[in-house]
Amino acid sequence: MAKSKKFVYYFGDGRAEGKGTMKELLGGKGAGLAEMTNAGVPVPPGFTITTEVCSLYYKNNRRVPARVDSEMVAALRRVEKSLGKRLGDPADPLLVSVRSGAKFSMPGMMDTILNLGLNDETVKGLIEKTGNERFAFDSYRRFIQMFGNVVLEIDKNEFERLLEMKKEEKGARLDTELSAADLADLVGQYKKLVREKTGKDFPQAPMKQLELARNAVFRSWQNQRAITYRKLNDIPDHIGTAVNVQTMVFGNMGDDSATGVGFTRNPSTGEKEFYGEFLTNAQGEDVVAGIRTPHPITALGREMPAVYKQLRSITSRLEQHYRDVQDFEFTVEKGKLYMLQTRTGKRTAQAAVNIAVQMVKEKLITKEEALMRLDPQQIDQLLHPVIDPKAKIKVVAKGLPASPGAATGKAVFTADEAAQRGETEKVILVRLETVPDDIHGMDAAQGILTSRGGMTSHAAVVARGMGKPCVAGCEEIKVDEKGKKFTIGETVVKAGDWVTLDGATGRVILGQVPTIEPELTGSFSELMSWADKIRSLKVRANADIPHDAKVARDFGAEGIGLCRTEHMFFAAERLPHMVEMILAETEADRKSALDKLLPMQKSDFKGLFKVMKGFPVTIRLLDPPLHEFLPKRENLMVEVNTLKAKGGDPKTLAEKEKLLARVEELHEFNPMLGLRGCRLGITMPEITEMQTRAIFEAACELYKEDKVKVVPEVMIPLVGHVNEFKQQKAIVEKVAHEEMKKHGVKLDYLVGTMIELPRAAVTADEIAREAEFFSFGTNDLTQTTFGFSRDDAAKFLKVYTDKGILPKDPFVTIDQGGVGELVKMGVAKGRQARKNIKVGLCGEHGGDPASVEFCHGVGLNYVSCSPYRVPIARLAAAQAVIKGKSKHAYTTK
Amino acid sequence: MAKSKKFVYYFGDGRAEGKGTMKELLGGKGAGLAEMTNAGVPVPPGFTITTEVCSLYYKNNRRVPARVDSEMVAALRRVEKSLGKRLGDPADPLLVSVRSGAKFSMPGMMDTILNLGLNDETVKGLIEKTGNERFAFDSYRRFIQMFGNVVLEIDKNEFERLLEMKKEEKGARLDTELSAADLADLVGQYKKLVREKTGKDFPQAPMKQLELARNAVFRSWQNQRAITYRKLNDIPDHIGTAVNVQTMVFGNMGDDSATGVGFTRNPSTGEKEFYGEFLTNAQGEDVVAGIRTPHPITALGREMPAVYKQLRSITSRLEQHYRDVQDFEFTVEKGKLYMLQTRTGKRTAQAAVNIAVQMVKEKLITKEEALMRLDPQQIDQLLHPVIDPKAKIKVVAKGLPASPGAATGKAVFTADEAAQRGETEKVILVRLETVPDDIHGMDAAQGILTSRGGMTSHAAVVARGMGKPCVAGCEEIKVDEKGKKFTIGETVVKAGDWVTLDGATGRVILGQVPTIEPELTGSFSELMSWADKIRSLKVRANADIPHDAKVARDFGAEGIGLCRTEHMFFAAERLPHMVEMILAETEADRKSALDKLLPMQKSDFKGLFKVMKGFPVTIRLLDPPLHEFLPKRENLMVEVNTLKAKGGDPKTLAEKEKLLARVEELHEFNPMLGLRGCRLGITMPEITEMQTRAIFEAACELYKEDKVKVVPEVMIPLVGHVNEFKQQKAIVEKVAHEEMKKHGVKLDYLVGTMIELPRAAVTADEIAREAEFFSFGTNDLTQTTFGFSRDDAAKFLKVYTDKGILPKDPFVTIDQGGVGELVKMGVAKGRQARKNIKVGLCGEHGGDPASVEFCHGVGLNYVSCSPYRVPIARLAAAQAVIKGKSKHAYTTK
Repeated sequence: MAKSKKFVYYFGDGRAEGKGTMKELLGGKGAGLAEMTNAGVPVPPGFTITTEVCSLYYKNNRRVPARVDSEMVAALRRVEKSLGKRLGDPADPLLVSVRSGAKFSMPGMMDTILNLGLNDETVKGLIEKTGNERFAFDSYRRFIQMFGNVVLEIDKNEFERLLEMKKEEKGARLDTELSAADLADLVGQYKKLVREKTGKDFPQAPMKQLELARNAVFRSWQNQRAITYRKLNDIPDHIGTAVNVQTMVFGNMGDDSATGVGFTRNPSTGEKEFYGEFLTNAQGEDVVAGIRTPHPITALGREMPAVYKQLRSITSRLEQHYRDVQDFEFTVEKGKLYMLQTRTGKRTAQAAVNIAVQMVKEKLITKEEALMRLDPQQIDQLLHPVIDPKAKIKVVAKGLPASPGAATGKAVFTADEAAQRGETEKVILVRLETVPDDIHGMDAAQGILTSRGGMTSHAAVVARGMGKPCVAGCEEIKVDEKGKKFTIGETVVKAGDWVTLDGATGRVILGQVPTIEPELTGSFSELMSWADKIRSLKVRANADIPHDAKVARDFGAEGIGLCRTEHMFFAAERLPHMVEMILAETEADRKSALDKLLPMQKSDFKGLFKVMKGFPVTIRLLDPPLHEFLPKRENLMVEVNTLKAKGGDPKTLAEKEKLLARVEELHEFNPMLGLRGCRLGITMPEITEMQTRAIFEAACELYKEDKVKVVPEVMIPLVGHVNEFKQQKAIVEKVAHEEMKKHGVKLDYLVGTMIELPRAAVTADEIAREAEFFSFGTNDLTQTTFGFSRDDAAKFLKVYTDKGILPKDPFVTIDQGGVGELVKMGVAKGRQARKNIKVGLCGEHGGDPASVEFCHGVGLNYVSCSPYRVPIARLAAAQAVIKGKSKHAYTTK
Repeated sequence: MAKSKKFVYYFGDGRAEGKGTMKELLGGKGAGLAEMTNAGVPVPPGFTITTEVCSLYYKNNRRVPARVDSEMVAALRRVEKSLGKRLGDPADPLLVSVRSGAKFSMPGMMDTILNLGLNDETVKGLIEKTGNERFAFDSYRRFIQMFGNVVLEIDKNEFERLLEMKKEEKGARLDTELSAADLADLVGQYKKLVREKTGKDFPQAPMKQLELARNAVFRSWQNQRAITYRKLNDIPDHIGTAVNVQTMVFGNMGDDSATGVGFTRNPSTGEKEFYGEFLTNAQGEDVVAGIRTPHPITALGREMPAVYKQLRSITSRLEQHYRDVQDFEFTVEKGKLYMLQTRTGKRTAQAAVNIAVQMVKEKLITKEEALMRLDPQQIDQLLHPVIDPKAKIKVVAKGLPASPGAATGKAVFTADEAAQRGETEKVILVRLETVPDDIHGMDAAQGILTSRGGMTSHAAVVARGMGKPCVAGCEEIKVDEKGKKFTIGETVVKAGDWVTLDGATGRVILGQVPTIEPELTGSFSELMSWADKIRSLKVRANADIPHDAKVARDFGAEGIGLCRTEHMFFAAERLPHMVEMILAETEADRKSALDKLLPMQKSDFKGLFKVMKGFPVTIRLLDPPLHEFLPKRENLMVEVNTLKAKGGDPKTLAEKEKLLARVEELHEFNPMLGLRGCRLGITMPEITEMQTRAIFEAACELYKEDKVKVVPEVMIPLVGHVNEFKQQKAIVEKVAHEEMKKHGVKLDYLVGTMIELPRAAVTADEIAREAEFFSFGTNDLTQTTFGFSRDDAAKFLKVYTDKGILPKDPFVTIDQGGVGELVKMGVAKGRQARKNIKVGLCGEHGGDPASVEFCHGVGLNYVSCSPYRVPIARLAAAQAVIKGKSKHAYTTK
C-alpha cells in the first residue's frame, strides 16, 4: 500500500473528498458515505479516518500519529461550519456517531458509539434546542453506557444492572416508561460507576471523548469477535478498519421523525419489491432491538408520502448507481430524510441467483457480472436439502461441516446395523471414524456423524461423493460404539434415538427436524448455461457406480474423471472374493479368486459406460492397501488373545490365528506410503490384468450390443518413476489387444497416470513421454508435499489455522505456494515432453472454487469433483475466465 | 555411442588394430590384449569382435550381421597367416579360444570355450603334430564338453556323469589316470550325448563351431549369473560384451611347458613382491581347479630361469605402463612364454590403501590418482572387525548387510534381556524388527539381527549410527519372540545359543566365530590427510551422546550435523518422565514433567559440547511421534481384553484402560505423516522451551566454567511452511535471550531447519529468509518424494530393484532424478534468498559415496553421517573434487 498523504476525508453538503472506489482506504461504509454524498443523496455530514491510520495505530504501539489529530480537527471544523453547530457548544451542541468500517462488512463485530459530544453542559443545550428533556437525558445515558463499555472497557452488565434497578424501583416494564428525572438520575449513577471502575471521572471534554472513541474503534479491530469473524469469512487481518465520524440525526424527535432499514429487492427470494421496515419516533436501535414491532416500509407511503417518495427515488438511484441490490438505513428527523448507510445487500443463494438473472434481463448488468455476483460456495445450499428455518431445534454439538445437506434418522452405531435397519427406516450412522468396509452402512444411512477426522477424512470424502450429509470430527461427542450410545456432557443418545444433522453448518440436533428439499429454479439453469458458454475448463465427476454417474450427468458433468475401482470390491457379495484373493498363498489361488471378480467388475464398467455414453470415463486401477479389505489387525489380536484366555473353540482360534498371520504380513506402519497404488499391480500383475480385462471386455461387448464406442482412459495410480508406469502400461496394452482381438473390435483408448507424488511432478517430462494423460491427485499430493496424513492431520491442522500458521486447510483449498508449484511444474514438464497431453485434476480440490480458479490459471483441461459439486465447479470455472479477462478488480466479496 | 565402422580388431605380431583405451569397444580383455601386443609383449595372435556387435546381436533378434562374419574371416586369415596354421587343417590345425570380455571385469560370469577347431579329423593332426595322443583326445573331450554346455545348452552334469562312469569303470581316481584310449572312447560317448540331446550331430565344421561359439558368448551376457553380478556391481546392462578369439597355446605339452597366474604386488597386503603360482605341464584350469597344488611363482625362477626373467621384465613393464598392479595369466609352450591376459589386480581394502600410498612414493601416480584408486565403500572394511577368513563357518541364512562388522554373541529376543545379560556376556539381539524403545537393548548387544525391514529400517539406521554390526530383513529366519527362538527351515536357534553375524555381507552364522580387529595403518591416515587437503565439502557426524561424538572426532568429523535429542529420552531413567509428560492432562502437569527432564538434557548437551569443543553442534528439537515413547496400542488392547476375559485385578485394569485411552488419542494411521517434528513444538510449545533452555543453559554454564564458547545450531525439524519455522524460531530466540541474560553470557547461535519435505524444498526461498541454515533430511525427503514408507517399502523395493524399475534403493543412494532435483531446487532457492546460507545434508545418504559426490556437485557446505562412515565421506568428497577437475574419465571401477 502506497503511503497516502491524507488521513481524514470529509463528506457533506453534496461533496465528498473520497469516493465509492476507495473501499480499501475508507472502508466500505466510508466509501459508501462519500459516494452517496457525491451523488446528491442527503447524508449527514462527517468524515472518515482512513484504514492506514489503523495500521499506523498498531505499528505505533497503539497510538495515533499527531498529524491525524490535526487533520481530524480540521474536518470537524468543516462539519461544524456546514451545520452551524459546534461540538461541545453548551447552547447548540453538535453530536456525532463514531463507527468502524472495514473494506469488508463485519456486521456487529466492532464497536460503535453514538451521541458523542454530550456532557453535563451540552445536555442542557440539547434540552433547550429540542425541548425534549427525556430525549436528551436518554441520549446522554446511552452515550455514557456505550462509551463506558467500548472505550473504558466496563462490563456492559454493570450499566444494565443499574438500569434494571431503576426500572424495578419505578415499577417500569419498558425503558420508555422511565421519566426524564429517572434518566437524569441514572446519568448520575452511570458517572459514579465510571469513577469507581476507572478511578477517573467520565471525560467531559468532547474532543477528548472523540479521540478516545476513535482509538477504541481501532482497538476493536483486534477483539476476539472480530478476529474470529475474519477467520471464518476469509478476511485478511492486515487490512484494518476506518473510523467514520458523522453528525447524529434523530428519528425520535416526535411523530414527524422516523427511522428504518430496507432492501431494494427481497433478499430472501430475490423478488423485485421494495422491502424493509421502519418505526416512527424511534432510534435505529429500537428497530433492531425488537421492543416495538416495526411496520412494513410500504406503510411509510401512507404516513409520510413525500419522504417515502424521496426514499424510493433515492434508493432506486442507488441501486442503478451501484448496479446491485442495496441494503440501506435511513432516519427522518423532523420531516427531513437522511440516508445513513447503503451497501450491497446480503441475500440467500436462491435470491442471489434470481436477482442476478433478473438484472441481466433488466440490462442492468452483463451475464459475466451476473456470474461474478454468485459465491460458488453459497450455491452449494441450492443442491441439498436444508433444515426448515422455521423449525425449533436443539443444537447439542457442533462438528465440521463435512458434507452439506440436512438429514434426520435414528442413531445406529455399526455399519451392519445401518445397512439392516436402513432398509425399513431412516438411520444416522454414528462412528468414532469410518473405514472403507463401513461403506454399505454409509450407503444405507441418511447421514453420517463421526467424532474424529477432518474435512477430508474417509467419512467426509465418501459422504461428499455420495452427496450425503456428514458432520465429521465432532469432538464434543463421546462415541461408545460397543455400548451403542454417544454422550455430550450429561446428554446421552442411545441407538434408536432420533438425531438430525446439518452438514452445511456442522450442527448436531436432537430429535426429528423437518427439512426442505432444494428447488432448482429456471434461473439457476439459465445461469449455469451462461457459465458453460464462458468457461474453458471442463468439469468431470468422480463416480464409481452407475447411480453416481447418473447424478453427475444430471448436474452437467462432461465425463468421469475418476472411477475408483476399489469401491466396487467392498460390496457384500464381492468382499469375500477380494479377501480370498488377498489371502491366496499362490499365484494360482490368487488368479482363481480374481477370475470370480472379473465378471462383476465387467458388469460395473458396462453400467458406467452405458450411462456415460459419448463421454470419457477414466478408470483408476486398484489403489488402496490390501489390509483395508481385511479385519483390523488389533481387533484380531484381541480376539485371538481373548479366545486363548477364555479357552475358546480351538478350530475358531486356529482360523483366526491364520488370518492374523496374513494380516500381520500385510501390516504397515504407514499404509499411506506402503504397498498400494501401482505397487500392487507391479508386485501382483494378475490384478492389473484382471481389471484391464474387465474394462475392455465391457467396452467391446457394449460396442457389439449397442454400437456404443467407449474411449476408456486407464489410469495407473501412485506412479513416482516412469519405469513403474512403463511396466503397468505394457500389461494394459497386452490385455487390451488380446480382448480387442478376441471380440474383433477396435477401440481407441488411453493409458495415463495420476500425478500424486512429488517425484511424479518433478519428473513429469519423463513420465509424459509414456503417459497419454495426467490427472493430478492433489489429495495425495498434498499429503506427501506437506508430509500430512489426511487421516491424522485434523488435530494439528486446527491449531495451525487457529494460530494463523496456515491460512487454510490445504486439503480443502489447494496450497498454491507449495502443492500448486508442483502442479505447475508437472503441467509445464508434461507439456514440454508431450505437447497435447490431456491434464486434469481429480479429488477434493476439484469442487473447491479457489482451487478451480487455480486449475484454470495453470491451464488444466479439466477438473473432476464429486457429482454434487459439479455445478459449483462449472460456475467457478466461468468466474476464473471472467477474472482473467477483466482488468478491473472484480470480487465476489 | 557413435557407430563404428569396424567390427573386428586384429592383434598379433607386435601390432594390434586396437589399443588400451578402447575398453568400451573392445572390452577390458580385448583392450588389454591389444595394448600388450602393441607394447611388444608376446601375446598369441587373435582378434576381438566389438561390444557393438553384442548390441546389434540383441537389437537384431539375436543374430549377428553378415558383415561381421566377413570381417571375422578376414581377421582369422591374418591369424592363420601369422602362425602358418589353418583352422580345420587336418594336418596342422589351428586351435582357438573364444572368450567374453566386457568393459568391466565379470570373472566367471560368462562363458568360455577352449580348443575350438578340433573335430574328428583335426584331432588326428594334433596327435601327429604334438605326438601326444592323450593330450589331443583330452583337448577334444574338453572342447565337446564346453561347447556342448555353453553353445548347445546341455547340462554340464550329463558330461560329468559320463566322465565319472568312465573313471569308475577304469578304477581311476583322477582324470589324469585315464588313458588316451579312454578319452577317445569318451569323445564318442560325448558326441552320442550331443546327438541325443540336440537331435543333431556335433558340428564338425570349424567355421560353424566358431560362429556358434561367438553367438553363445553374446547370449551369455544375459544369463542369470551375469545379470545378477552386474546388478550387484553396478555395471550397466546396455554396455554388452566383446568376444575374443585367440590362438590356443598349451602349457601341458611337456616339462618345458607351464601355466600360471600372478600379481605384480601382493593383493592381500599390498606388499611389493612378485606374487603368484604356476604348474608345469598343465593347463590354466588345472591351476584354478586345485587338483594339483601349484608352486609359488618364485620357484619358476629356478625351473625356467630365462622365462622367469622375461616374465618379471614383462610384468614390471606392464605395471609401469598401466601404472597399477597387474593381475596376469601366462603360459609357457615348449619354452616360449605367452602372456594371455593382464588386467588391474583386485585387492583387499588394506592392500588398496598400502599400494596407493606406496605408488605415490614411487612417483608412479599422483596423490589424486591414489585417492581415485580407492573405492570408498571398500574402505568401510577397514573400520570394522571382520570374520577371520581362516575360520570354518556354517552360514545358515543371509539377510541385508545393514551395518558392517562381525559380531558374536548369545541370542536374546527382547531388549530388556539384551540389556540385562549384555552386562556380563556377549549377546546378539534378535527381533522381528526393532522399535525406538529397544534402544537400550541394542546398545548392550554386540550385534542386531532382524527378520523384517530394509537397509534403512530402524534397526539398520540405529546400528550404523552405533557402528554396531546388523543383519536386517533376514526373511529366511522365523523369529518367535515370545517362544524365544528363531528357526531357519529345520534349524532351531534358542535363547542362549551362540550366533555370529557378518554385517558386511548379511551372513548369519551358527556358533562362535573368531573375528579380526581392523588395523588403521599409517598409510590410511596419510591418504585421509591428502583427501582432507583436496575436498571442499565438510564432513560432520550424526551423534547423540558424548561417546559417539568422541568416535566421530577420532574419525575426523568436523562437527556434529545431527544430534537427535529424542534418543536421550529413551534411557531407562528418563523414559518415565517422558511418559509422564505425554500423559499429562494439563499444560501445568506437562511443564512439571518437562522440568524434570530439563537438567538431564542439559547435562547431555554439556557433555556433547565438551567433546566437540571448537566445532559446531547442530541440535534437532524433538522429532518423533509421541506414541513411540508409550506401549504399543495393540498390545495394550490385548492386555485390557485379556484382563477382562480372565477377570483380572480391577485396579490394574483401570490403569491399563486409562493408558490405552491416551494411547488411542495419540494413535495415528500414518505416524510418519502425523503429529511429529515441529508440529510437536507448535502444539506443545513447552517442549521447545524446555529443549532450548537445556541447550543454552549448557552452553552458558560451559562458558562460565571452562571459557569454551560453543556455537549451538538449533534445528527445527519437519518444517513445510515458513510460518511453522517463524513460530518456533520466536520461542527459541525468546528462551535463548532469557538464558543468556540470566547467565550474563553472550553467545553466537544459529536457528535453522531441516529441509525434509517437498514443500520445504519448493518454498526454500521463503524459509531461507528466516532460517540461518538448512540441513537436508534426505531420509524423510525420500519418503515423501517417492511416497515410500522406509519401514514398509522393503518388500516392494526388492521387487522394484529386481525388476529393474528402480536402479537402486533410494534410501541407500540418493535418487538424483527426483529427490536430488528437489535438493537442487532447495539449495538454489535458499541461496537466492540468503546468499551465504549454510547448507548441509544429514542422514543415511551422508555416508554413501555416490550421494556425497552429488552433494559436492550441488554445492552443499557439508554432509553429516554416522561416525563410522566419516572416513568414507571424507574420501568420497575428495574424489568428487578430483572428478570435477579432471577432463579425463577417472573411474574407480
